[in-house]
Amino acid sequence: MSLLIVGTVAFDAIETPFGKTDKIIGGAATYIGLSASYFTRKMDLVSVVGGDFPQDTVKMLQSKGINTDGLQILKDQKTFFWSGKYHNDMNTRDTLVTELNVLADFNPILPAFYQEDEFVMLGNLTPLVQEKVLAQMKTQPKLVVLDTMNFWMDVALDDLKRILKKVDVLTVNDSEARQLSGEYSLPRAAQKILAMGPKYLIIKKGEHGALLFNKHQVFFAPALPLEDVFDPTGAGDTFAGGFIGYLAKTKDISFDNMKRAIIYGSAMASFCVEKFGTERLLSLSQKEVETRVQQFIDLVQFDIELV
Amino acid sequence: MSLLIVGTVAFDAIETPFGKTDKIIGGAATYIGLSASYFTRKMDLVSVVGGDFPQDTVKMLQSKGINTDGLQILKDQKTFFWSGKYHNDMNTRDTLVTELNVLADFNPILPAFYQEDEFVMLGNLTPLVQEKVLAQMKTQPKLVVLDTMNFWMDVALDDLKRILKKVDVLTVNDSEARQLSGEYSLPRAAQKILAMGPKYLIIKKGEHGALLFNKHQVFFAPALPLEDVFDPTGAGDTFAGGFIGYLAKTKDISFDNMKRAIIYGSAMASFCVEKFGTERLLSLSQKEVETRVQQFIDLVQFDIELV
Repeated sequence: MSLLIVGTVAFDAIETPFGKTDKIIGGAATYIGLSASYFTRKMDLVSVVGGDFPQDTVKMLQSKGINTDGLQILKDQKTFFWSGKYHNDMNTRDTLVTELNVLADFNPILPAFYQEDEFVMLGNLTPLVQEKVLAQMKTQPKLVVLDTMNFWMDVALDDLKRILKKVDVLTVNDSEARQLSGEYSLPRAAQKILAMGPKYLIIKKGEHGALLFNKHQVFFAPALPLEDVFDPTGAGDTFAGGFIGYLAKTKDISFDNMKRAIIYGSAMASFCVEKFGTERLLSLSQKEVETRVQQFIDLVQFDIELV
Repeated sequence: MSLLIVGTVAFDAIETPFGKTDKIIGGAATYIGLSASYFTRKMDLVSVVGGDFPQDTVKMLQSKGINTDGLQILKDQKTFFWSGKYHNDMNTRDTLVTELNVLADFNPILPAFYQEDEFVMLGNLTPLVQEKVLAQMKTQPKLVVLDTMNFWMDVALDDLKRILKKVDVLTVNDSEARQLSGEYSLPRAAQKILAMGPKYLIIKKGEHGALLFNKHQVFFAPALPLEDVFDPTGAGDTFAGGFIGYLAKTKDISFDNMKRAIIYGSAMASFCVEKFGTERLLSLSQKEVETRVQQFIDLVQFDIELV
């Protein structure tokens, strides 16, 4: 029983006020898998790359406990490429280039032994592709987490709403929650979205933290106030990877354990933004992760005894 | 020994997407005093109003434990008046009218028995007026909290920097912290501002919560996710009133107790925005306050045991 991860494996070129990169390794599934690897070494990847994708990187992913039998390599095609430039506030960005390449006709195929995985992370992709993955599961997973974005709300809302009925947790950012629900107030938005299917909703607010809702409870986790954010690329996926990685490790999907998972996800995301791309995620120690989680505890911990 | 509160007592006219008010009672010192009254009934007010200010309101303030011997009533003049209109996001507003009236030449005079107060809350006012108040203290207060705003950074920065050397806690919002320090990163901004004098800095982020810094520690308190925010007017002052009111009640100015004070301040602010003006602050029960604080505990509480 492993953690099934579906999402892009890609090339990114990133420009921030602190510098710029040539083509580096990126993609939602890459960040999710690297982040989750600090919690579990039993992961199954479903994705697609071109013949230009470095074999060394595939080996690196395997060395992190990521099975790549479900990674299609289309030798005559090129890997998905995204290029973006962040503004000075680091919260907004312009997309400079999007070359779908292999992603244009991606048809996910799950090896047989993937089909009974208990935890499924559907990284941001066309809702139809996410749905095709779920349709291949032989047994009902213990937990399905779906990430999506405003683009799919614009162009594939019906598909998105259909798959929302089949997932347990949805992760979106605050403006996406508002768009999907038509409500400005996040608690109202959450209740409308939960009525669409998911039992849990995570609203990511970037530097302002994250909220976890179910129908009766709400939990808030802050982001760590960082002196410098070098590159926000992949922070949301890294958060998701830490979240589901922790749940897959502990196999406890109670609300209380999801709170812990959100803290671990937030800690992983706080590392991600400290360097360009995946660099910071490649060589963390367990000790560094635990020290960072302790910083979150110190940041929000207080003791009030009510009479 | 009482809590000394300096600030405006005013008329406001407020328009939000939910409605509008005629002239209602407002002013920083009003919100601070009403909020602090849930923690202490020993308050000394320094402010100024005109002959048009209702005597009933003065009596109401007195009934909350606010001594008004330091409230100047200039019979032939008019009370300070502010009118503003909030935008749809409730985070930004346009000032429609500012009539300084009595505030134009305000010369604060402290009755003798105010001059040994242990806790001093300097609400947002001209830095020179705030300084005149401090100059009249006979004994060094246990804690001086100063609130200010971007306007004084624009027109009276030298005065502001001078008084910053004489206060213990500064409260500003995030954009003001950035303006005052010239740093975008809030942790960097905090260290620069702490180097200007205050031992503690509170950065208010509205719906995104508040940060407390000293030179070595940081604490984050969320804002409660509210279904509806009817009127943000006075929320920052209500926060400050709850903060210093709790400290004045407990007489403990350790960092750990300031954390608690920030939670109580945040709870009071969450009530303030639920109705127009001061309405919600006038008739809360202690039980309602404690229930609200419990909501904050539930919102952020998690238990992770690190090995």
